[in-house]
Amino acid sequence: MTYLDHAATTPMRPGAVAVMSEALARLGNASSLHTSGRQARRAVEESREDIAAALGARPSEVLFTAGGTESDNLAVKGIYWARRAADPARRRILASTVEHHAVLDAVEWLVEHDGADVTWLETDAVGRVRPEVLEAALAATPDENALVTVMWANNEVGTVNPIAELAAIAGSHGVPMHTDAVQAIETLPVSFAESGVSALTMTGHKVGGPYGVGALVLSRDVGCTPLLHGGGQEREVRSGTLDVPGVLGFARAVREAVDARATHAPQLAALRDELVAGVLSVVPDAVLNGDPGTGVVAGGPSRLPGNAHFAFPGCEGDSLLMLLDAKGIECSTGSACTAGVAEPSHVLLAMGAEPETARGSLRFSLGHNSTAADVAALTAAIGPVVDRARNAGMAGLRRTSVRSAAPTEV
Amino acid sequence: MTYLDHAATTPMRPGAVAVMSEALARLGNASSLHTSGRQARRAVEESREDIAAALGARPSEVLFTAGGTESDNLAVKGIYWARRAADPARRRILASTVEHHAVLDAVEWLVEHDGADVTWLETDAVGRVRPEVLEAALAATPDENALVTVMWANNEVGTVNPIAELAAIAGSHGVPMHTDAVQAIETLPVSFAESGVSALTMTGHKVGGPYGVGALVLSRDVGCTPLLHGGGQEREVRSGTLDVPGVLGFARAVREAVDARATHAPQLAALRDELVAGVLSVVPDAVLNGDPGTGVVAGGPSRLPGNAHFAFPGCEGDSLLMLLDAKGIECSTGSACTAGVAEPSHVLLAMGAEPETARGSLRFSLGHNSTAADVAALTAAIGPVVDRARNAGMAGLRRTSVRSAAPTEV
Repeated sequence: MTYLDHAATTPMRPGAVAVMSEALARLGNASSLHTSGRQARRAVEESREDIAAALGARPSEVLFTAGGTESDNLAVKGIYWARRAADPARRRILASTVEHHAVLDAVEWLVEHDGADVTWLETDAVGRVRPEVLEAALAATPDENALVTVMWANNEVGTVNPIAELAAIAGSHGVPMHTDAVQAIETLPVSFAESGVSALTMTGHKVGGPYGVGALVLSRDVGCTPLLHGGGQEREVRSGTLDVPGVLGFARAVREAVDARATHAPQLAALRDELVAGVLSVVPDAVLNGDPGTGVVAGGPSRLPGNAHFAFPGCEGDSLLMLLDAKGIECSTGSACTAGVAEPSHVLLAMGAEPETARGSLRFSLGHNSTAADVAALTAAIGPVVDRARNAGMAGLRRTSVRSAAPTEV
Repeated sequence: MTYLDHAATTPMRPGAVAVMSEALARLGNASSLHTSGRQARRAVEESREDIAAALGARPSEVLFTAGGTESDNLAVKGIYWARRAADPARRRILASTVEHHAVLDAVEWLVEHDGADVTWLETDAVGRVRPEVLEAALAATPDENALVTVMWANNEVGTVNPIAELAAIAGSHGVPMHTDAVQAIETLPVSFAESGVSALTMTGHKVGGPYGVGALVLSRDVGCTPLLHGGGQEREVRSGTLDVPGVLGFARAVREAVDARATHAPQLAALRDELVAGVLSVVPDAVLNGDPGTGVVAGGPSRLPGNAHFAFPGCEGDSLLMLLDAKGIECSTGSACTAGVAEPSHVLLAMGAEPETARGSLRFSLGHNSTAADVAALTAAIGPVVDRARNAGMAGLRRTSVRSAAPTEV
């Protein structure tokens, strides 16, 4: 099997599997006062220190959560609630149009149900938030700004944002900034302190750790109203019994990923460039979406090293995905797909793509155990698959034009 | 080591460890469309069916969460928001005074930050919510009632509530009822359908499954606004990448626990009765708090079979806990303890106990791997430990009376 969907989930690192499996059979609620409880607590605190060290943060800034979705929701809703409680005029959230749904939908819920206003930060054609866009948006509503949220690197097209520059602008307006760095930890030089952001989302299963555990790295000087109330764990910001084995596996994966990053990231970028060249050699009219990846942003690559994202003109992304899957190659359309109804990616649309282009796109994402054989398998398969999808697409087009009297079906 | 703190967390069942360890090394995001993703999805759906079958629920009613705290928060806040959205007059939450902090603190947050009103349902002296109390409370505010929340069995003193009777009363007023059944699943005859509740909280690590995974069992006809927005997993009520290995381990533990329940529960009750008799034989003035456990409530025992909770007059619970711990016996005060400041249990206070009694109490909780040797170890140790704590307590009492000019310090 050729796995090219590491951005969706990447295999657990064997070291993380080992440390977690061993911990599953051990006992102790980290809130208990007895010996088992104190041992569990110590293991959690050592993990917290490891993650903090790997991320350029202080241990007390690392709050364990159940993963990226919870961290995003906690940051967006919690900081919004706390900022508004301190000053009722602060009702505006500034969010990029290409955020993950965990941010987008949290923002939209606050708008619909909780009196928030939103400024959508437009991106350029590669999906990057330009500093001048943020500066102008903040200046336009000086007394209303509750928080800024811009992802570190985009999960679909891999575009890296100039986070430190954006955070400095937010800071100059006195507004805290959150960043979803779920995709960034493994391959980009992420330092919480140096970035200047107030809150950073990360999760285990994108770095070779387990599902169901993540963290919100949160400055001590930024208020954040809890989403989950209860026992008062995690600085009273996130209650819930700590998942000791999960935390241990997560910390181990973060440490391994960050330790290997300086050598791993360039190797991955080279492999990705090979993949891009391979696909383009077979399908010359395929278009690489997003940033070309040759630039530098914030001291690192301008595109996630493991990300390649193509538009295949005349194809349906879902057809390509299924045809490749039948050949043992797993990838993603990178678009939201609910109940089998493929919708064009909001990210590509926000970048200015036509809906047909967006629907005809595929994401190939490489990770810590990807090899040249994976790239070779894709290069060998993609040509016939695109041909077949195009024939199906032409048939689909004929059906669509027959149906064009009923535009709601399109 | 003698572990008598199963109510805080119980060891993972070997079967659950095995199934989860094996799954850690496997791949696949259950939202992905390719083969690995579909395999992960299938495993999750089989787990959902297993849990539903064990709980007397339909598979579509089982929503996976990160655990008990999240399920409680989701039920209380989500149902409150949805009911109020349907009718703005519905702002009142009826909650028992002995709920877990995950419920209590969620209710209090809604009161402070979101316009909720609360009716605290008083309990009797054993900590049970009497049906007539709920009936009178609902009748007093007929148009305002958003939801009722009463736990199935109390985590500190083990008292079982007549859930079906309470749910029938709530139903007759057209009000949905939530129950925190975290402590009940392993030893009480819990059937979601037969109970008549609209929402039920459960969690993995209290039944021999993993930390970090739980469920909210939620009727299809009850609205529940999400706490976590995003990818739209779990009926759009709870977004977040599914923790496939955790879900598998959880389902295995639930199935094992429920399959063994009919034989396990009476054995556990017999062992607990032995423990109670043993402690009382050595410390005759110890008082068993809560229900005597000899009655029947809703077709099962009136007290959790594994629970024993004593007041030791003249002792500090924390001193007893630490002295027992030094002898290798692990238990809990059952009280909230934040930053080393012991507060008397809100449960015991709500039952009418004096603060000194509440502070001098200990919970011993037995579980699926408890043995007669555990009981014997406690019986052998508890006499000298209580003597020593009493001497320390007398010294503390002398210090307290010297300090009594400064009541805020007490």
